[in-house]
Amino acid sequence: MKLAILTIGNELTTGRTVDMNTATIARLVWQLGWHLTSSTSVGDDEEMIARALSFSLSHAQVVIVTGGLGPTADDITTATIAKALGIPLYTDEKVLTGLRELFQRYNLNWTENNAKQAIFPVGAEILPNPAGTAPGYVLPHGASHIFVVPGVPREAEKMVKEQVIPRLLKLTGEETAFPMTRTLKTFGLSEAAVDDALKDIDFRSLGITVGFYPHFPENHIVLSAVGRVEQEVKQRLLNGEKQITERLGRYIFARDEETLEGNIGSLLKAHRMTISIAESCTGGLITDRLTDVPGSSDYVERGYITYSNKSKIELLGVEERTIKNYGAVSEETAREMAEGTRLRAGTHLGLAVTGIAGPTGGSEKKPIGTVFIALSDEKGTRCSKYQFRWDRRRNKIIAAEAALFTLWNHLKTGP
Amino acid sequence: MKLAILTIGNELTTGRTVDMNTATIARLVWQLGWHLTSSTSVGDDEEMIARALSFSLSHAQVVIVTGGLGPTADDITTATIAKALGIPLYTDEKVLTGLRELFQRYNLNWTENNAKQAIFPVGAEILPNPAGTAPGYVLPHGASHIFVVPGVPREAEKMVKEQVIPRLLKLTGEETAFPMTRTLKTFGLSEAAVDDALKDIDFRSLGITVGFYPHFPENHIVLSAVGRVEQEVKQRLLNGEKQITERLGRYIFARDEETLEGNIGSLLKAHRMTISIAESCTGGLITDRLTDVPGSSDYVERGYITYSNKSKIELLGVEERTIKNYGAVSEETAREMAEGTRLRAGTHLGLAVTGIAGPTGGSEKKPIGTVFIALSDEKGTRCSKYQFRWDRRRNKIIAAEAALFTLWNHLKTGP
Repeated sequence: MKLAILTIGNELTTGRTVDMNTATIARLVWQLGWHLTSSTSVGDDEEMIARALSFSLSHAQVVIVTGGLGPTADDITTATIAKALGIPLYTDEKVLTGLRELFQRYNLNWTENNAKQAIFPVGAEILPNPAGTAPGYVLPHGASHIFVVPGVPREAEKMVKEQVIPRLLKLTGEETAFPMTRTLKTFGLSEAAVDDALKDIDFRSLGITVGFYPHFPENHIVLSAVGRVEQEVKQRLLNGEKQITERLGRYIFARDEETLEGNIGSLLKAHRMTISIAESCTGGLITDRLTDVPGSSDYVERGYITYSNKSKIELLGVEERTIKNYGAVSEETAREMAEGTRLRAGTHLGLAVTGIAGPTGGSEKKPIGTVFIALSDEKGTRCSKYQFRWDRRRNKIIAAEAALFTLWNHLKTGP
Repeated sequence: MKLAILTIGNELTTGRTVDMNTATIARLVWQLGWHLTSSTSVGDDEEMIARALSFSLSHAQVVIVTGGLGPTADDITTATIAKALGIPLYTDEKVLTGLRELFQRYNLNWTENNAKQAIFPVGAEILPNPAGTAPGYVLPHGASHIFVVPGVPREAEKMVKEQVIPRLLKLTGEETAFPMTRTLKTFGLSEAAVDDALKDIDFRSLGITVGFYPHFPENHIVLSAVGRVEQEVKQRLLNGEKQITERLGRYIFARDEETLEGNIGSLLKAHRMTISIAESCTGGLITDRLTDVPGSSDYVERGYITYSNKSKIELLGVEERTIKNYGAVSEETAREMAEGTRLRAGTHLGLAVTGIAGPTGGSEKKPIGTVFIALSDEKGTRCSKYQFRWDRRRNKIIAAEAALFTLWNHLKTGP
């Protein structure tokens, strides 16, 4: 089934508000295996609402409209839709009585413009709004259906879930379909490299579709499939995942709603291990991410943000001559930082990062983006050198990700 | 001038991504006094791109297209636009050579699909992309112009500002017009409170328009004006700013491109002061933000992320009995943390935060969102208690902002 979305409001065409309704509804539609053909935003403008409705109906059987149902003068959605389709309007007395009662119950001042929310096109089925005052409605139009719900994101989401989708399932007779997705999150490969590695897999013959979504510095691969037998749909996704994992397994650190820091947390808990972090160029970002995970106080003992040389020496026990001979950004310093944090914090693991985030501070031998990442445990310390190529903020972000990825790899392979 | 936006990508029609480009571009267009008639999103789908382009061109002279310019198979924007308009494609050798050089310079593995980013419709003017690999272009079409830029929000914004808008000003004969904006960034007031405080200012009679933009946890007020005499436009904005500052001055911490952490950096440098930070519930986020500022190593000496009680005692000298008697989340602990970091790091200032981010760990006396922020200098230590009401991540974000705002206030009033 093909659907289109039409979001209405001057706040959208002036950039005052980011349209959240489209993404919310699109996800719900996609998960049901339906096809969202377009989503159009227009202002509270009669001509543009009519044009956009006609555009949407030209290629979709179902149009979901949000916004412009309120009591104020610029809320013209219902009047404009009715006019565009040549349908008269009427006031629904039951809805009007309900509105008046609602205002009385909440001790709100009734003004006559509120009666506008009880006006509907003739032939519309009214959809109750459990979260606000303006009800929605569905209007059959030839072979098409136009669903109209309020623009307030909370109300729109609730009404699409509870009122629109059940009616659409009935319309399409698809109540028993199983739409499923599988997300594989990778780090360390460019989007083009992911694409290249997978180009010879015939996903179509596996009965799945594949999408790539960059989330700097990660690349996410999303597989989706839909069918009438749950177990069979699951199997198709597993087959696709298996083929991708054979090629890119070592870059995949998380699935679906999992995160890198969340999976690190699970592994640390499973191994009953603790960690401390020594950060220089990342400035606290690694520990910030680790502590985004609820319950991370179980394994994050402390972090040192040793921005100055003095703090590296005082807090981590880095040798003054190491910094003098090799520099604060060097493998030698990174190793001493990792060992220092592990020993001084008394944790199983010590993770350290030192580097040059930019925009200044680079040299020919150590250009901007040079980063050393060291991980220390009781068996020893390993250090890797990286060369990133972004601006200051993104060099911090990718260095933090690389450090977390190093840690995750270490934990995964059984420390 | 009427403009339409067309954003392209399966990530939009499947709800994987919220379309940020529309709001960004809409706002730029609105600030110039132009009229955005519609914004349409479609997937990487030949038929729908063609239909949406035709719809956009039916009511707007200018269409700004974002997305689908990358190297992967689903990036079909250029090929589809050219086909829809009956224009042949060509490979621009200069762009291709530039791409190959870029890959070489950054030691990236060149794959042939990247050459796709050097293919353009004949007659297009190429628009350089200062922030990514895929260039954009503008294609004249009858009396209309189609601008095409990459979908990555950072690249799209930069290219619309630097490449698209100057060309549109030329097209409309408005080159000599001076569109200007003034952004005032506030913290500590809700959007409704900002709105309420300003409702009796007659911005229209001042010749300026005003918009409110929430950027959690900040609220930004954007004044815009346009005219042919630069000095006169500037004066109008200054008049508006003066009126707002009279009402909301103490909440305004930055203007235009300034940031809270950047302005703190400038003040610390001006006062030749250094700072160290002791973070518990914010997990490193405060220091991460402070160190986003280039040159922050001049004044950020170190940060302590004292997540465990043990680390608060060992690293900051918090008294064991303070934690025992008052708790790790208490005014007493926050004060000792701020004093401890200042004295141990030997910095002029010590900033400390301890709190309960959630989702667990709250109690009746100290519910989730309870946060203590302390700032210490040689004259003494001040501490404030806050009660936030968000989820874990947003409690961290707003606590970090409140701590930085406290620091900025202290520095601004002359420490």
